[in-house]
Amino acid sequence: MSTTDSAFAPAEAPDNEDHAALDEDYVLTPQFVEKVVDAADDGDGMRLRSLLEDLHPADVADLMGFLTSEHRAVVVLWLPPELLAETLPELDDGIREEVLERVPHGTLAEALQELDSDDAAAVVEDLEDDQRERVLAAMPDVDRAAIESSLGYDEESAGRLMQREVMAAPQFWSVGDTIDHIRKQGDDLPELFFDIYVVDPLNRPVGGVPISGLLRAPRSAALAELMEPVNEIAVDQDQEEVAYIFEKYHLISAPVVDAAGRLVGQITVDDIVNIIQEENREDILRLAGVADEDRGSSVSEIVRGRVPWLAINLATAALGASVIGLFEGTIQQIVALAVLMPIVSAIGGNAGTQALTVTVRALATRELNSANAMRTFLRELAVGVANGLVLAPLIGVAAGFWFRDEDWRIGLVIGAAMILNLLVAACIGVLTPLTLSKLKFDPAVSSAVFVTATTDFFGFLIFLGLATMVLL
Amino acid sequence: MSTTDSAFAPAEAPDNEDHAALDEDYVLTPQFVEKVVDAADDGDGMRLRSLLEDLHPADVADLMGFLTSEHRAVVVLWLPPELLAETLPELDDGIREEVLERVPHGTLAEALQELDSDDAAAVVEDLEDDQRERVLAAMPDVDRAAIESSLGYDEESAGRLMQREVMAAPQFWSVGDTIDHIRKQGDDLPELFFDIYVVDPLNRPVGGVPISGLLRAPRSAALAELMEPVNEIAVDQDQEEVAYIFEKYHLISAPVVDAAGRLVGQITVDDIVNIIQEENREDILRLAGVADEDRGSSVSEIVRGRVPWLAINLATAALGASVIGLFEGTIQQIVALAVLMPIVSAIGGNAGTQALTVTVRALATRELNSANAMRTFLRELAVGVANGLVLAPLIGVAAGFWFRDEDWRIGLVIGAAMILNLLVAACIGVLTPLTLSKLKFDPAVSSAVFVTATTDFFGFLIFLGLATMVLL
Repeated sequence: MSTTDSAFAPAEAPDNEDHAALDEDYVLTPQFVEKVVDAADDGDGMRLRSLLEDLHPADVADLMGFLTSEHRAVVVLWLPPELLAETLPELDDGIREEVLERVPHGTLAEALQELDSDDAAAVVEDLEDDQRERVLAAMPDVDRAAIESSLGYDEESAGRLMQREVMAAPQFWSVGDTIDHIRKQGDDLPELFFDIYVVDPLNRPVGGVPISGLLRAPRSAALAELMEPVNEIAVDQDQEEVAYIFEKYHLISAPVVDAAGRLVGQITVDDIVNIIQEENREDILRLAGVADEDRGSSVSEIVRGRVPWLAINLATAALGASVIGLFEGTIQQIVALAVLMPIVSAIGGNAGTQALTVTVRALATRELNSANAMRTFLRELAVGVANGLVLAPLIGVAAGFWFRDEDWRIGLVIGAAMILNLLVAACIGVLTPLTLSKLKFDPAVSSAVFVTATTDFFGFLIFLGLATMVLL
Repeated sequence: MSTTDSAFAPAEAPDNEDHAALDEDYVLTPQFVEKVVDAADDGDGMRLRSLLEDLHPADVADLMGFLTSEHRAVVVLWLPPELLAETLPELDDGIREEVLERVPHGTLAEALQELDSDDAAAVVEDLEDDQRERVLAAMPDVDRAAIESSLGYDEESAGRLMQREVMAAPQFWSVGDTIDHIRKQGDDLPELFFDIYVVDPLNRPVGGVPISGLLRAPRSAALAELMEPVNEIAVDQDQEEVAYIFEKYHLISAPVVDAAGRLVGQITVDDIVNIIQEENREDILRLAGVADEDRGSSVSEIVRGRVPWLAINLATAALGASVIGLFEGTIQQIVALAVLMPIVSAIGGNAGTQALTVTVRALATRELNSANAMRTFLRELAVGVANGLVLAPLIGVAAGFWFRDEDWRIGLVIGAAMILNLLVAACIGVLTPLTLSKLKFDPAVSSAVFVTATTDFFGFLIFLGLATMVLL
C-alpha cells in the first residue's frame, strides 16, 4: 500500500551530523524527537518545518508514533502538503484516523491525487462516511473512479492491494518495440515496475519478462521468446494467500487477473512485506489475547481490546477453581496439596503453550496440513511423555523431601500428576489450533486461554484426585 | 539466500488437473504427497522422477518437509541434480543438514556451481567440517573463492546475505552506454537486478537508478542526472537491521559497501522477506519458551530445546509455592482461599503476558525506544488499573456469593488482590522486556516465564496476605 522507493534514500542521510534525525541504523533518535517536541511546545512553526521537510515520509510516520496526540496536532499543521500526502499511507491505523480528522477535506483531496491508486484508496477507506463523500467530491473524476473501483473489492483482497497501473505488451512485440513504447508512454506507466506482462488479444497474461532480462536481450528479440510463465493472482484472493505465494516463489511482482483471466493490475513485493508484518503482528498478539492496538490507541481502546480475554480467562479460571472446590476435604487434611497444586498447573500451561505456539506457527506458514497432521500430533505426544519423564523425578524428589514430615508419597503423586498433565498439554496444544483451523477459524484466536484452562482443569483434577486416592 | 524468480511460475500450474501437485493457493495437496509416499514405498524411481521433475524448487523443499526421514532419503536419490541444487537453499535447516549427509561430495560440488554465491555459501555453511573441505576441494577456484569470501563475514551479517554480482556504472555514462554495456556483459551480471548503482572512480556508490527509470529515459540522458540517493548497507550490519531498513523505506535492492565505502555487493528484497519471517518466527517461539525447531527436528532435539524452559518454570513455580507455604495456617482455617488463589495468579499472568507481548513487538518493530518508553509505561499502568476496576467487581461479587456461608468478605479480599496484582502485571510486563533490551539481550527470551513467575508470586502473596489480615 505504500510508495515503492527502490534505491531512494531519505534526503537526510544518517551520517549528516548536523541534523542527525536518524542514527546509523536509520532509527529516529530520541534527541531528534525531543527537538520536535520542543518546537511544537513553543509553537515554533518555522523551526518545525525545517526539522520536518527533509524527512522521508516513513520517518515522518515513525515520528508521529513517538509523539502525543497534542504534539501530532501541531506537527500536522506544519507538514508540507506533499509530504503529508506521502506520510498518510505509512501511519499506524489509529494515528491515521486521528490525523485525518484534523486535515481539511480540500487539502486532503489534493494530497490524495499525489498518491498511487492503492495508497489513496487505503487512506480514503479510513475516513468517516461524511468526510469520505466530501473528499471524493472534491477530487477529479478519474482519480475518484480509481479509488471507488479499488474500494469495490473486499478488504484484505488482492484487488485492494494491487495498483491498476501495469506495463503490459502484446505477444508479437520485440524488445525494441517494448523499449520504444516505454520511452514514449512513460508517464502512463507505474512509477516503478519490475516485470513486463505479455498479454494475448483478450488482455490475458500469457507470460512475463523481468526488465533486467529485457535490457540484456538484443532489440530484435521477440517477447514471446523471452517470456516465462507467471504466477497469476486472482483479484478476489485473500492477501494472506497472496503473501504466501510471493514468499514461496520469491516474487518481485505478479499480475492480478479478474474472473475472466484478464489483466487488471499488479502487486509488488513491497506491499507484501507490509502484509507479512501485519499477519505476524496479528498472530503474535492474538496468541497473547490482545486485539489490534497500536501506538495511537487510547487507554480505553486498549482496555476494550484486552478485557474480554481477561474476562474469559476469569471464567475458565473459575472452572479450574471449582475442581479444587471438589477436593476441599482433602486439602483440609493435607494443606501441602494447596502449596503444590499451582506447580502442576503452571508447568502444564507452559508445555501446552509451547505445543500450541509451534502448531499455530506451522499452520500460518503452511508447513502443517492433513498430510502430516497425524505425525505432528504423535511427535508432540512423544515430546510430552519425554518432558514428563525428565521433570517428574525433579519435582517428585523435591516435593517428597520438602514434605517428608507429612507424607513422602506426596512426591510420587506430584510426579505422576506431572507426567499425565504434560500428556494432556501436548494433546490439547496440538488439537486446539488444528481443530480451529479445520473449522476455518483463526487458530491463534483464543487458543492460549483454552489451552491453559484445560491444563489447569486437568492439572488440579489429576493431582488432587490422585492425592485423594493415594494419600488419604 | 534464495534464487530470485521474479514473475516465473512453477512449470506445473495449479489449474493443471492431471498433475494437481498444488491446490489453487499454490499449496501442495495431501493427495500429491500421498502419491510421492506411495512411489517411494514401492521404490518406483521412474514414477518418482516424473512426479518431481516439473516441481518448482520451493515446492520440492515443501514436499520434503511433509515426508518422513526415510522417504526423504529415497526422494533425494531421484531428484534431477539441477533441481536438487536449487532445492537445497529452500530447505528447513534441520532437513538440509540431513539431506546433505546423503549427497556424495562430487555431486554436491557440481550442484553448488549452479547457484548464486550467497546461496552456495548458505549450503556450504551447513556441511560438517570434513565434508566441507572435500566439497570445496572439488570446486573450481573461482567458485571456491567466492564461497570462502562469503563465509568470511559474520553469520547474520549483510556480508553473508549479499550477492557479489552487481550492476554498477560510472557517473559519466549515459542511458545508452549503460544499456549497451548490459547487452554485451549480460552473463557477468546478476541473473536479475532492479537498480543500477552509479559509482565514483573509487567504486563508491554515489546514487542509484531503478531500471524502469532507465528504460523510460532517452538514450542520451546522463545517469548522473537520473540518479537518486541510495541507502547504503554496511557489510557488517546485522541482518535484522538490514531488514528494518528495507521494510521502512520499501526498498527492492540496496548496495552493500565495505568499511572504505566501496561497493562490494547487493542485497535484494526477496532475501529480506526470508529474514523477516525468520525473525518473526524467533520472536513468537521465544515468547513461548521454544528454542529453534522445525519439521526436521527429532523428538530428542525438540525436548532438549523445550525442557530447559520448563525446568526454569518448575523452579519459579516452586518459588510461588513457597509463598503459599508461608500461609499454610491461614489456608487450614479457610480452605476457600486455596480454591480461589489460582484465579488471582491466572489473571495476573494473562494480563502480564498481554503487556509483555505488546512491548516485545513494539521493540522488535522499533516503535518503542527511550523517546516514548515512559509514556508507554504509564499507559500500561493505566490499562492495568482499568482492567482491575472492570474485573475486581466481577470476581469479588461471584466469590463473595460462592463462599457466603463462610465469609462474604472473601469477595472484598479477592477483588482488592486482583487490582493490585494487575498493577504488578502491568509493571513487570513492560519493564522486563525494556530492561532486557537496554542490556542488549533479546527482549523475548525468558521474559514470559519471568513475568508469570512474578505475577504468581505477588498474586499469592497479596491475596493470602490480605486474607490473613482481614479475615482471621
